[in-house]
Parts: sequence; C-alpha cells; structure tokens
Amino acid sequence: MPEPSDQRMSARFPVVRFSQGRSQAGEDEAVVEEPLEIRVAGRGVGVTMRTPGHDEELVIGFLVGEGLISGPGDVERVRACDRAGGDAVDVIVSAGVAVDFARLTRHVFASSSCGVCGTASIEALRHRFPRAADGPRVPSRVLHGVASKLRAVQPTFDQTGGLHAAGLFDASGELAVAREDVGRHNAVDKVVGWALLRGMLPLSAYFLVVSGRVSFEIVQKALAAGIPLIAGVSAPSSLAIDLCLESNMTLIGFLREGRFNVYAHPIRVRDDERQTA
Amino acid sequence: MPEPSDQRMSARFPVVRFSQGRSQAGEDEAVVEEPLEIRVAGRGVGVTMRTPGHDEELVIGFLVGEGLISGPGDVERVRACDRAGGDAVDVIVSAGVAVDFARLTRHVFASSSCGVCGTASIEALRHRFPRAADGPRVPSRVLHGVASKLRAVQPTFDQTGGLHAAGLFDASGELAVAREDVGRHNAVDKVVGWALLRGMLPLSAYFLVVSGRVSFEIVQKALAAGIPLIAGVSAPSSLAIDLCLESNMTLIGFLREGRFNVYAHPIRVRDDERQTA
Repeated sequence: MPEPSDQRMSARFPVVRFSQGRSQAGEDEAVVEEPLEIRVAGRGVGVTMRTPGHDEELVIGFLVGEGLISGPGDVERVRACDRAGGDAVDVIVSAGVAVDFARLTRHVFASSSCGVCGTASIEALRHRFPRAADGPRVPSRVLHGVASKLRAVQPTFDQTGGLHAAGLFDASGELAVAREDVGRHNAVDKVVGWALLRGMLPLSAYFLVVSGRVSFEIVQKALAAGIPLIAGVSAPSSLAIDLCLESNMTLIGFLREGRFNVYAHPIRVRDDERQTA
Repeated sequence: MPEPSDQRMSARFPVVRFSQGRSQAGEDEAVVEEPLEIRVAGRGVGVTMRTPGHDEELVIGFLVGEGLISGPGDVERVRACDRAGGDAVDVIVSAGVAVDFARLTRHVFASSSCGVCGTASIEALRHRFPRAADGPRVPSRVLHGVASKLRAVQPTFDQTGGLHAAGLFDASGELAVAREDVGRHNAVDKVVGWALLRGMLPLSAYFLVVSGRVSFEIVQKALAAGIPLIAGVSAPSSLAIDLCLESNMTLIGFLREGRFNVYAHPIRVRDDERQTA
C-alpha cells in the first residue's frame, strides 16, 4: 500500500546545481509526465497529462466524476492499450449507460493537460511554436534573489496560502509584472496577456518565475510567448524538461534562497564565480 | 506592482480550528475561485475556474498559448462582460486571424476547471450529485495522524518533490489506498477508480486526504464518489467551501501535525477532549 505500479513514475535527468555561487554537474530524479488518451467505446474523448501507472483506475475515476458511471455494473470492460507512440485506456460501458459524447468531450479534463488528442498531436504541439531566442544571460546572483521578490508582491498568498504566482523579470532581476491566481496556468496566462497588450511579445529579453511546479503546459505557455528561461520554486516534470531541451529554453527548478537546479540549457545562467575569477 | 485588482481575491469564512486536542471557532481568509467564460467573437469556447481580477489579461494570455494570437495587432477588442450570474470575457480578433472554433473548444483549458460553460451550468453541476451521507464521525486524533501516514507511502515524492498524493482512509485512520500523480485531480481519480472497480461506491464510510490545495473540482470528484469528508494539507478555495457547505460535506484544510481547520460541517469531527471530559 500503495500497490506497486508496473510503470516507472520518475526518471533521471542531468542537472547543474548552483549553490553558494558554485555550480556542479550531477543527476536528479524528476516525476514522469506523459499523455494518456481517454477513450469510451473506442472513441477518443480527450487526453490528460498524467504520471504513468494505474491508468485504468484513472480513467474509471474520471468517468465517475463526470457522472457517467457509479458502480462496477456500469463498466463492461476497461482496457489499457499501447498504441503506436502513446498510451490509451478504452472503457466499454454497459448497455444501459447512455453516453453523451459531445458533453463528455467538452468536459474532458485538461487538468495538467493541453486537451490534445493523442501523441501525434502532442508531437505537433511541441513544434507549434518557434524555438526560443538565445538571450538573455542571467547572473546566478540575480536568480538567487527573484523567488523572494515574487513572494514579496504576493499579498493574497500571505492571507490565504492558496494562490499561485507568476512573475516576469528582466535579466537584471527587475520585476516587470506579477500576477496571482488559484490556478498555476492562469497566473502565467495573466502575465502573458499583460505583455501582449503592451506590445512586448516575443518576450525574448525576459524570464518567467512561477511559485510552484513546472509542468509541460507551463513551459508551452512560456514558449508561445517567446520566453527563453523559466524558473520554478518547485520540481519540474519530465515532459517539461524534454520540451525545454528541444525548444532551446533554460529550465530551472527548486529555486530557493541560495540554490537552484538547471535542467536544460544552463548556457543562459551566468556563473558569477567564474565571471569574477 | 502587482497592479491593484479591482476585484476581491480572497473572502472570509467561518472556521473551527483544532489544535492540541482543542477546538475554537473563528474566521479565515480563503482565496476566491469563480468561473469565467472565455468567448471569441461572442462565441463561448470554454470556462475556467480562476481568481477574479485581470480577466482580460487571462483570456488574452490563454489565446497566445493556443497559438491564436501573437501580437496586439491580432486583437480588435477585449471586453469583460457581467452576464446574469457570471463573468465572461469576449475577444474580437482582427480580420486576418483565422479561428478554428472546433479546435479551440477542444483545447480549451480546464486547468482548475470543470470545462462547464457558464454559471447556469456551474449551478447545474453543483446539484448533479446527491448530497453526501451523514457518516462517519472521525476523532480529531485520527485526523492529526493521517497526513504523515499519506506522506509515508509517497515513495516517488521523496525522490522528485513533484507528485501529488490522494489517500482514502476509514474512520479509524486505516489507509485503504493511496495514489500519486503529477496532477492533483488524477491522484483523486485513481483512488475513486480503484474503489469503483472493487464495488465500494458510494464511499460513505471513508474520507479523502489530498496532499495539496482543495479546489472546487477536487470536492466535486469526492462528492461524485459519495465521500462525505475531505481533508487537504493546504488551503481550500472559496468555491470548494461553498460546494461542501451545500453538499453536506465536511471540509478540512491546513491538515498538519497537531492542527487543522474545518471549513464546513464540523459535526463529523469528533472532538477528543470533549469526549473524554
């Protein structure tokens, strides 16, 4: 308990650790995030980003939340299928269960997801936006300071403990804008929307700091806005790392006072020690 | 910086605080979570749960992430509208911007959302599932212990720091099942799916513990499975509290060693001090 999953839930990635002004190459374990297609009676109703393992339970539980099924008698068969290049679970419901496909497709959760159907589309999505531009290079001392700067302008978090924040900084560590929201993605959307309305896109001279974890969708939103560096206070997912590696984006995780890890393209982090040596 | 929002981002709720075996009534500030309908050219493409404020930026930023717009020239007009019983933002794109409504609707983010269109539907959703049953009553000392029990069976979190967990407990504090996922909702879906496949729904003799925040959608998933008590290690949202209040569900937040807050229906929490006095 929990029952062992037959799938690997984490994977190893190369990392450069910055701490006390020093950097060291190593390895780190990141949680696996991969797309799963949800099918009902052979028909795709949506895709969720999830951590592999217990996929049948995930899809069954999702359909309970949608009000489609409420007991084992409503389920004829659940089947996980390896399709070419992607995972899927197909649920055959019992004869008496009415399926409103239009409604189900509309409601389908994109919780940590992009709502894309199937891995072919995921691949297409990865290459939908141009690779990030090369600049800026950010001194590590600037990165050490931004998490607390973001925290300092989060008045609502202090009261409620319930808000995510996203902040846009320039290479000198100057805050351009910060936004809060109950949803992580929303905070990023607000920052990007603020910038577009000011004619600032692509944001190739800025970097984005988020108060939580960095998932595929957060990276994709940053890439769409042309942001070449993203830093999260918490852990990145495997797919976030992959997307940054192939999109020329720098990805920083575990951004805390005095330390952080770089999971992709450390070239944009200027190591102060080496600079001043 | 951040610019002041014209909306209230948090709201006060009555709370009962349990600490060191004692309980005390008070008030607490919770982050506001409310539905916002996203419209393009007057046509609804989806609803997101969000914290009010900077709604135009949110929708513009979302459309950047969808690849629909990339500069201010692509936007003809952005307009926030108060509809009867709900907020909406309508974006009129410029003549040269091609809008694929089918694709957009499909992709529309349900980040912390239910994918429901408009407040009328939100209301319908609230009343889609029966109110929770009355039992069980859980001793406060049991609740004090479950967060660490859940943490103890989270092997992947320890390695990666990137996973959410959900655990199903009985009233004596015995763990029935725990599941981890990169997505909060997925971990709950896996637990509910596990239970359905064993013929255990409705889960009226159990309670659910989640490792993170408690949002509307998490509560709705628990309600669909008939779970009468939900406890989160972090903060609840305003809409989560509302839904619990009207669905006869007990809602606990900030479940830490030795303390927790009850935001709805404290009747199910058995105060050990009073029992033994």
